[in-house]
Amino acid sequence: MRVEIWSDIACPWCYVGKARFEKALAAFPHHDEVEVVHRSFELDPGRAKDDIGPVIPMLAKKYGMSEAQAQAAEDNLGAQATAEGLVYRTRDRDHGNTFDMHRLLHFAKEHGRQGELIQALYEANFAEEASVFTGDERLVALAAAVGLDADAARKVLADPTAYADEVRADEREAAQLGATGVPFFVIDRKYGVSGAQPADVFTQALTQAWGERSPLTLIDQSAGEACGPDGCAVPQS
Amino acid sequence: MRVEIWSDIACPWCYVGKARFEKALAAFPHHDEVEVVHRSFELDPGRAKDDIGPVIPMLAKKYGMSEAQAQAAEDNLGAQATAEGLVYRTRDRDHGNTFDMHRLLHFAKEHGRQGELIQALYEANFAEEASVFTGDERLVALAAAVGLDADAARKVLADPTAYADEVRADEREAAQLGATGVPFFVIDRKYGVSGAQPADVFTQALTQAWGERSPLTLIDQSAGEACGPDGCAVPQS
Repeated sequence: MRVEIWSDIACPWCYVGKARFEKALAAFPHHDEVEVVHRSFELDPGRAKDDIGPVIPMLAKKYGMSEAQAQAAEDNLGAQATAEGLVYRTRDRDHGNTFDMHRLLHFAKEHGRQGELIQALYEANFAEEASVFTGDERLVALAAAVGLDADAARKVLADPTAYADEVRADEREAAQLGATGVPFFVIDRKYGVSGAQPADVFTQALTQAWGERSPLTLIDQSAGEACGPDGCAVPQS
Repeated sequence: MRVEIWSDIACPWCYVGKARFEKALAAFPHHDEVEVVHRSFELDPGRAKDDIGPVIPMLAKKYGMSEAQAQAAEDNLGAQATAEGLVYRTRDRDHGNTFDMHRLLHFAKEHGRQGELIQALYEANFAEEASVFTGDERLVALAAAVGLDADAARKVLADPTAYADEVRADEREAAQLGATGVPFFVIDRKYGVSGAQPADVFTQALTQAWGERSPLTLIDQSAGEACGPDGCAVPQS
């Protein structure tokens, strides 16, 4: 079974939802047979790469609220993150464009380190004091810390076209699947879970999807030439 | 869309079927959105690792035919492979246990080189004069040639438990999906194609699966807390 998770590093509910999903997955009896793939989704794709600033004034402006109200909302979010056992800094976080992080996540996927890198990026963005938006070298260090080659990661970041198509393809697919926000979880392209639902909703989704796996429909009932334990079909000359 | 292909390196129809599938895939309009994953299936899992020998006498014994008849069958198979543009040696090929190759393919998958390695293994087994069953160093060289780290590949081969669970898990899944022979193609865990069917059957399968992609069933209609282009849900304290 395969679970695809569309998310953005700048999305607090993605950080929280991932923890809730992973809690459900760890307790799921067939978790060894579940593959998790991370897909790209940018909350703020139009934001300039150098347009980086603190989260609270950005939130206040976006929602037309005071900075005190924005800070209260962020504090509430932090409390929900803490309840999931996550570290969440409610002060002095930055906001910015995450396109390069998504490109780097596709590079990491090619090298079998996507799960490790996305967790490192979330922690860097939500739990650590140093901003994750300070440029390529910060991202290179995070990539290297999860076992990726630093020089190769640096080259990916320096070339804005590297893995750009892969990010855009994920985003197109999110739209096709009807996802308007993240996190968005898709099981075997059949079941969806929208948002940072409680762990028991993920448990229900995994259980339902597992139980309702349908038998394959064979496209051509006449089996083509094949090999099996008793040998191979012998071609007719 | 995702296509999983169960196959064995020792399976001539897998080599031929892969070429036919790839011909269909290359012409499929949405091929950029198709991910291909290779899954393990051993034709001869009980065969001892050191039980290596020429294909023709093995075939003759297995089917109770003369070696001349076995050679004629192999020649016919070679003709079908040639018709697909493949090089296929019909003389002096060896047969043996492929478990180590499957373990190595799972290692390659973790490093994003599975597609390259399986093609290299097929060519080594069916097109090249040197046997692919001569031991670890031959496989290490093939792994290195597709960009994998030679020392890491050597360690995987030297440890019979490395990636063994992954191979067994693929084989269990094949049985669960009803595959009794290979190649066996599965699209989005919904449609199956059994055997080395003609390219147009794969075209039909891809087209049908693409057209019938069903909308997702949302497990919980009440969306959980999420972030979208207009911002994040503000938690209620």
